[in-house]
Amino acid sequence: MSDAGLNRIDGVYVGNMLSGCLQRQENLGTMMANAIGLTGVSVAKVESACASGGVALHVGVNAIASGANDLVMVAGVEKMTSQPNPNVTAGLMGAEDQMTVAGSGISFVGLNAMIAQAYMDKFSVPPEKIARFPVVCHKHALNSPHAQFKKSVTVDDVLNSPMVADPIRLYECSGIGDGAAAVILASEEKAREITDSPILVAASAVANDTQSLHQRSDMTTFDASVTSSRKAYERAKVSAEDIDVLEVHDAFSILGVMALEDLGFVEKGKGTTLLEDGQIEVGGMIPTNTFGGLKARGHPVGATGVYQIVEVAKQLRGEAGRNQVAGAETGYAQNIGGIGSTITGHILARMD
Amino acid sequence: MSDAGLNRIDGVYVGNMLSGCLQRQENLGTMMANAIGLTGVSVAKVESACASGGVALHVGVNAIASGANDLVMVAGVEKMTSQPNPNVTAGLMGAEDQMTVAGSGISFVGLNAMIAQAYMDKFSVPPEKIARFPVVCHKHALNSPHAQFKKSVTVDDVLNSPMVADPIRLYECSGIGDGAAAVILASEEKAREITDSPILVAASAVANDTQSLHQRSDMTTFDASVTSSRKAYERAKVSAEDIDVLEVHDAFSILGVMALEDLGFVEKGKGTTLLEDGQIEVGGMIPTNTFGGLKARGHPVGATGVYQIVEVAKQLRGEAGRNQVAGAETGYAQNIGGIGSTITGHILARMD
Repeated sequence: MSDAGLNRIDGVYVGNMLSGCLQRQENLGTMMANAIGLTGVSVAKVESACASGGVALHVGVNAIASGANDLVMVAGVEKMTSQPNPNVTAGLMGAEDQMTVAGSGISFVGLNAMIAQAYMDKFSVPPEKIARFPVVCHKHALNSPHAQFKKSVTVDDVLNSPMVADPIRLYECSGIGDGAAAVILASEEKAREITDSPILVAASAVANDTQSLHQRSDMTTFDASVTSSRKAYERAKVSAEDIDVLEVHDAFSILGVMALEDLGFVEKGKGTTLLEDGQIEVGGMIPTNTFGGLKARGHPVGATGVYQIVEVAKQLRGEAGRNQVAGAETGYAQNIGGIGSTITGHILARMD
Repeated sequence: MSDAGLNRIDGVYVGNMLSGCLQRQENLGTMMANAIGLTGVSVAKVESACASGGVALHVGVNAIASGANDLVMVAGVEKMTSQPNPNVTAGLMGAEDQMTVAGSGISFVGLNAMIAQAYMDKFSVPPEKIARFPVVCHKHALNSPHAQFKKSVTVDDVLNSPMVADPIRLYECSGIGDGAAAVILASEEKAREITDSPILVAASAVANDTQSLHQRSDMTTFDASVTSSRKAYERAKVSAEDIDVLEVHDAFSILGVMALEDLGFVEKGKGTTLLEDGQIEVGGMIPTNTFGGLKARGHPVGATGVYQIVEVAKQLRGEAGRNQVAGAETGYAQNIGGIGSTITGHILARMD
């Protein structure tokens, strides 16, 4: 609100997944509005597993576009360190069906390991190729002011890190952490009044898939990624070639690789080819996770989908510091909930 | 969807409060979409404590009004009987600040008892006057197909029921229960295509207040009730006099009395005067909770704000059976989350 020079807004939408399970705290919409001294405004908590932030943004965008609100804050927040890690792991399984998948005892790294195995097998991709993804994220995080893991790692470091769920190793997993992020939304007219550097939400798309892997015919692609990006490109009247900066939901590195394919940046099965020669690095073909992504920037669940938007906006405003993508005009953010069961696609653009 | 003759919709918004806390089940948007065979659609769970259903409706209305969706299902659901009642009571306290109010050990009936004490003291209202409210709800529930407590009670029954938190007695409290409800939303044009009896959402308003009572100067009125109704009347271009049928959030009977005042049906402190001579009964001045309200119809938290809409719609369509309000053209539904901290106001109207 200070950044936007505002002391009053009329809607607060909060993306959060785990507050009910971990803190037994609900009603976060009112709680956050109260924390900034607001009463009489629209409020809601929005939950869609790890896509809670992205879906909250979608809900906020609709609130503005419908005329229901003039100025909305979309915030994402998660506090994951208040309970022992096993409770957090169990809580995250709330994204899956408790009666079937979660009850089996498998965790999210296990589910993603099945995807990684299927992917590596189908496309003959060795672990060392996927291991380049977190290396790039860690490299970007070195210049990222709020990164959780601000250290350089090599492919060898990744391949020698402990195995968590075969074939996924520790350095391919996002960590547990606390975090929060917020953006202010307004109509185009209002936005131009309150800032000299407004960013257009050119598209806000959500798509769901089956809740669980066993209900799908192919584990190596996320239909909801393909569908949400197709909707987003169509609404924004752009294609993957027009995207200058990209945020993908690399909760596990295999997901980053798949995202490059599902969002149309490279053909299916060839995602790791973009990891060579710095093509997803700042200065490359499609700079990705330029603040470190989920792997190194962090993955405080409900906050993730919102900080992605903040960071794309920073790139488009030319405020990305040492990781600035020169001339970035259009950005894409992908946020995934569950095992690809709820995916958002947001396209932001400079308004010149 | 059968009622609307649809086999495809493009958005599913689910109001629910306690699934994270009680069932450790999240991602309900996708889960419900899946249960009806949908992929590729917009989904979200919306949480605002006991107003989760009403706020989900607001989010769904915005999704249609913004053009983001063509056909939306807003569903409310709560499963409260899977855990022992003390866990449910503790879970409901998630609507309050865990660090301050909830941590004191007080429960929601305790908070409402403080309101009732303040109200009775300030306006010199004796318990037997408030006790008429649940009597009316139980009377209406006798003809309500899905009512939880389908039995007649007298003022004496209420006054002789066990004291839960002085001055609130058992028969003034809504019960714990499971439930679900759903409505389909569409643009006016689309709605006319799919049904011969479309109902207009003439206004959808949300207002928050401070999260807790100790932050307010007056406990005998809910500012969020006043503000949300003012917004709703303004948007629908009607006033309280135009409302033919009313749903109020009587989680405790004192809240029903206060709602009659805060929504403008009677002056402050005089709510119980409307309980005399059948004025809030079917056939009276402002028929209220005609299917039994939270007290007798039930209060499966996330479902409540949605079933209120279903029941107002039934009245406006002339489908309310033996409790039909003759010629009902405009209805109002009030849904409260927390101790008046998040309140929705919806005005529905016949489209002729």
